Amino acid sequence: MTWNTPGLDELPVYEKLSKLARDPFDLTAPGAISPDRILSYKASAAGFDLLFSTQRVDDAVINALQQLADQSGAVDQFLAMKRGAVMNRIEGYESENRQALHTAGRDIFSEPPYNAEATQQAKRQLQDLKVFLDELDSGAVTNAQGEAFTDYVNIGIGGSDLGPRALYRALSAYARENRRVRFISNVDPDDAAAVLQDLDLARTLVGVVSKSGSTLETLTNEAMVRAAYSRAGLDPVKHFVAITGQGSPMDNPEKYLRAFHMYDYIGGRYSATSMVGAVMLGFGLGYDAFIEILRGANAVDRAAEERALRKNPALLLAVLGIWNHNFLGHETVAVLPYSQALLRFPAHLQQCDMESNGKSVTRTGARVSFSTGPIVWGEPGTNGQHAFYQLLHQGTTVVPAEFIGFRQSQHDMDLEIEGTTSQQKLAANLLAQALALAVGRKDENPNRFFAGNRPSSILLADKLEPYTMGALLALYEAKIVLQGFIWNINSFDQEGVQLGKVLANRFLEHMGIARRGEARDRDRYPESWTMLEAAGILQEDETV
Amino acid sequence: MTWNTPGLDELPVYEKLSKLARDPFDLTAPGAISPDRILSYKASAAGFDLLFSTQRVDDAVINALQQLADQSGAVDQFLAMKRGAVMNRIEGYESENRQALHTAGRDIFSEPPYNAEATQQAKRQLQDLKVFLDELDSGAVTNAQGEAFTDYVNIGIGGSDLGPRALYRALSAYARENRRVRFISNVDPDDAAAVLQDLDLARTLVGVVSKSGSTLETLTNEAMVRAAYSRAGLDPVKHFVAITGQGSPMDNPEKYLRAFHMYDYIGGRYSATSMVGAVMLGFGLGYDAFIEILRGANAVDRAAEERALRKNPALLLAVLGIWNHNFLGHETVAVLPYSQALLRFPAHLQQCDMESNGKSVTRTGARVSFSTGPIVWGEPGTNGQHAFYQLLHQGTTVVPAEFIGFRQSQHDMDLEIEGTTSQQKLAANLLAQALALAVGRKDENPNRFFAGNRPSSILLADKLEPYTMGALLALYEAKIVLQGFIWNINSFDQEGVQLGKVLANRFLEHMGIARRGEARDRDRYPESWTMLEAAGILQEDETV
Repeated sequence: MTWNTPGLDELPVYEKLSKLARDPFDLTAPGAISPDRILSYKASAAGFDLLFSTQRVDDAVINALQQLADQSGAVDQFLAMKRGAVMNRIEGYESENRQALHTAGRDIFSEPPYNAEATQQAKRQLQDLKVFLDELDSGAVTNAQGEAFTDYVNIGIGGSDLGPRALYRALSAYARENRRVRFISNVDPDDAAAVLQDLDLARTLVGVVSKSGSTLETLTNEAMVRAAYSRAGLDPVKHFVAITGQGSPMDNPEKYLRAFHMYDYIGGRYSATSMVGAVMLGFGLGYDAFIEILRGANAVDRAAEERALRKNPALLLAVLGIWNHNFLGHETVAVLPYSQALLRFPAHLQQCDMESNGKSVTRTGARVSFSTGPIVWGEPGTNGQHAFYQLLHQGTTVVPAEFIGFRQSQHDMDLEIEGTTSQQKLAANLLAQALALAVGRKDENPNRFFAGNRPSSILLADKLEPYTMGALLALYEAKIVLQGFIWNINSFDQEGVQLGKVLANRFLEHMGIARRGEARDRDRYPESWTMLEAAGILQEDETV
Repeated sequence: MTWNTPGLDELPVYEKLSKLARDPFDLTAPGAISPDRILSYKASAAGFDLLFSTQRVDDAVINALQQLADQSGAVDQFLAMKRGAVMNRIEGYESENRQALHTAGRDIFSEPPYNAEATQQAKRQLQDLKVFLDELDSGAVTNAQGEAFTDYVNIGIGGSDLGPRALYRALSAYARENRRVRFISNVDPDDAAAVLQDLDLARTLVGVVSKSGSTLETLTNEAMVRAAYSRAGLDPVKHFVAITGQGSPMDNPEKYLRAFHMYDYIGGRYSATSMVGAVMLGFGLGYDAFIEILRGANAVDRAAEERALRKNPALLLAVLGIWNHNFLGHETVAVLPYSQALLRFPAHLQQCDMESNGKSVTRTGARVSFSTGPIVWGEPGTNGQHAFYQLLHQGTTVVPAEFIGFRQSQHDMDLEIEGTTSQQKLAANLLAQALALAVGRKDENPNRFFAGNRPSSILLADKLEPYTMGALLALYEAKIVLQGFIWNINSFDQEGVQLGKVLANRFLEHMGIARRGEARDRDRYPESWTMLEAAGILQEDETV
C-alpha cells in the first residue's frame, strides 16, 4: 500500500483556501477579537490548550482547513504510520523504504499496541534500562573504586543530541540529587575540551549515541573522551555505554559496559523518546520520570487520531501552519516559549521540522509546485521581547508566532513585586504579545504605528513537567508529520545532507595530500583546492 | 545636520541592480566558481578574511553594489556617526534624538579620538573598572569573611544580556582561574531559581545592568537574588554592583558596592563593549582581555571607513546582504559559526540586527517601499548540518548563509583521527557546505537532486580570541548600521517594543483586580479579560 496523496494544490479545497486568503480575517477591526471568538477558538488535549483567536482565520477558513485535513487523509495516514506502514519512501526511486514508528516506543500503556513488534522491542529495551538504572542505584554497578556515578556525558549529534538536550534542559529542575548531565556534539574540538575541563571522569558515565555506529563527529568525540580516560588511568569499558543499532560496530561488549538498541524504523529527529533519550534521561531524572514523558507523548499520539480540528491540537497546528505558510505566504514561523527551561526546544524543532519538511519532491518524486516546510526559529520570552520582537511588530516581514506558556513555574521560588509574581508577569507578557501583534495600534507618529494582523497561536499547559514535556514534544512531531502528509512529501528521509558529506570528504582528502606532500589533483578539483588555499588552511599544514 | 538620504529605491543604481537581479550569476554552471574568482572575491580587515565567491554576484553586480554604497553615502554616515551626529532620530516627529556613539568606547587607542567627550567618559569608566578589578585581586575588596569573589552573576535582559553572554560564552576558554560567570535574564522565575540553585552566594558578585534603572525583568530578578542574600544572612551591599545610567534609581551607593555608568548615546544592543560587558568580562577574563576586545572592535570601526568594498568587509557584508534580501528576495539570513564557542552569537545578532533594522518607516517617517531588516537565525556547525541543513540544501526556500570559521581551536586539545584533526574536519565541513550550497548536484533520482545557487559568504580568522571576538562583534554592528544607512531607516530606536509593554501592564492590572475581588472592567477591555479567562490564568487567582 502506498500513501501518495494528491499534492496540496491538487486537493479540491485548495481553490477555496486560495480565494479565502485574498481577504483574510482582519484582526485589527474593532471588536474583531470578540469574547465569543476567544472562547470558541480553542482546542485541548493531553493537558494543553491551543488558543487561536489571534490567527487570521474565521469560521469559513476553519471549515476549509478541516476539509484540507479530511481531503488529504492526514489522520488516516497518521494511523497507518502508527500501525507500521512504510511511510519513509519515494515511489519509483531508490529510497530508505522504512516504517516510521517513533510512536510505537510510547505505545506501552494499552493492549494491544498499534504495532506489536516495535512496541515489544521498546518494552524490552525499557526493561534492560530499568535493570541498569536499578543497578546504578543499588551499587551493583559502580566505578572501579566502588563509587556511584554522579555525572553523565551524552556524545551524539543531530537527533542524538538536540532532542535529548532540549528535554534535559526543560526538566533539569527535577534532576535527581547528585546527578548531572552534559553534552558533547560538535566536531569542533573545543566542544569536548570545554566539557572535559570540569568533569570528574572517575564518577562519569559516557553515553555514545549513533544508530549506525559510524557518525564521524560522534566517533571523533568518543575518541577524544576515551583518550582523556586513558590519560587519567581509567578503564573506559567501566564508563562507556553504547546507544546504537543492533549489530553496529558500537554494539560491542568488549568496548562498552552496556549497549541499548535503537531501530531503523525511528529516524534520529524523532528518537528522543527511544533509548536515545531514555538512558540519559533515566540517569538524570529517574526511570519513572522518563515513563511520564512517554505517557504525555502517547496521549498526544492518541489525540492526533481525532478527525475534528478542535479535538486534535496537533492537526490544528498543522493546518494553521499551512494556512500561514502556503496561503498567506509567510516563509518562517517563530516558536516562542515563555519558559527559560525551553531554551533549546526551538533548536530541536529546527531539526525535527526543517529536516523533515525541507523537501522539494513529492512521494512520487515529482517536483513540488508549492512551498514545503517553513524556517523555524525562536528564543524564549520575555528575553525575545528585548531582542527581535521589534521586527515582529514593526518589520516589513510578517512572522507567524507560536507562543508556549505555563500557568505555574517549576521551581517553587517566586516573589511578588508590584502586586504580581514573576510567573504572572511572564503570563501577562505572553498574552500581551499575542494581542499586540494581532490588533496593532494607530498613532499619529508613523514610527509608533503598529500595523497589526500578525498571526499567532498560544499553547498553554499547567506546568512544565515530564508528562507535559512529552506531550509538547509529540505535539510538534505530530504537527510536522501531518503537514508532510498534507504536502505529500516524505518527512522521514534526509537526502539533502549527503552532498555536503561527500564534499567534506573531498576537502579532507586534499588536506591529506597536502600534508603528505603528494601531487595535488588541482586540475580535477580546481574549486575545492582553491577554496582551501584562499581560506589559508593549507598553508599551515605545509609547514608541518 | 540631518542624515536623511534617498530611500533604497530612489538611488540611481537601484534600477541597474533590479535588472541585474533578473539573471543573477549562475553558480552551478561548469567552472563558474573558478580559481580566479575564488582568489579575487575576497576582502580582508582586522584579522578576518571574507570570501564571497559563493555569492550570486559577478563583477557587474559588485560594481553596482559599490555604487550603491557610494550613492547612499553609507561610509560618510558611518563617519558622521562616529563623530557624534544625532543619527538616532525621525525627522519631523518625536523621537529619541540621540547620538549613536558605541564606537567611541573603543576609540581609546589613538589621539585625537573621533568624539573626544564620549571617549573621555569611556576612559574614565575603564579607569574605575581597572581600580575595582585590581582591588578584587589585591584583596582590598572581598566578601564579609575576607574571601575573594569567585563567581559573578549578570542580571540584565536584551542588550544587557545577549551581547555580554555571547562574548563570555565565546571566550570562556580563557576564563581566569577560579572565576565563573552566570546569567539571569528572563522574568521567568525558574531562570533565577536554576542559577541560584548551585551558587555559593558568599563568594559571588552580582552585576545588575539597566540603563534606566527601571527595567521590570531586571529589577524583579534583582529582588529575587537580593532575597536569597537576605535568607543567607549576607549583606547585599557587599556583593551588588550597578551598571546603570548616571543618576538613575540604581546609581545609589547605599545599595551597591560600586556603580559603573552607561550613557544614552549607546543603545543597549550596541553596548557589549561599554561597561555593560566590561565589568562582567573584566571579572571573568581579566582587564587586559577586555582591552583586547576593544582593540579588535576598534580595528573594524576604522576599516569600516574604507570606501572600497574589498577593503571594508563590513560594508561588503552589508551590500551583499541587501543584494540577497532586496534584489534576490530572500527573507532570512542564517549565521552559521563553525565554533561551538559562538553558540550564543546568533542570538545576540538577532537582537542587534532585527531590533535595529526591523523597521517600516524611513528617517523622515515615510512608509518604506522596500523590505528592511531580514530575519536572522542560526546555530553552530557542524551541529546544524545534522539538523536544519536539509532545508538549506533541498527546501523550497532559499536561505543565504554567512559561515564563520577559525583556523585554530581555542583549547589546545585535539586528536588526529583518520588522518585529520577535529579542527581540520570542522574547516573542511565549513568549506564543503558553502561549495555544496552553491554548485548543487544533478542526479537521476529527483530526491537526490540539489538545485544549487544557494548563496553564502565565509568569514575566517585564525583563532577566536578576545581581539578576534571584538572584531567579529564590530563587523556585524557595522554591517547592521551601514545597511540601515542605505535603507535610510533609524537603526537606533525600538518603538516596536512599546505596545507589548502597554498591553502587558493592562493584563497585570486585570490580574490585580481579579485578585483583590474588585469589579472587572470587562466592558472596557473585553479582549484582554477574555484572553485571561480562556487561558485559565485568572481562575487560580480567584481562589487565592
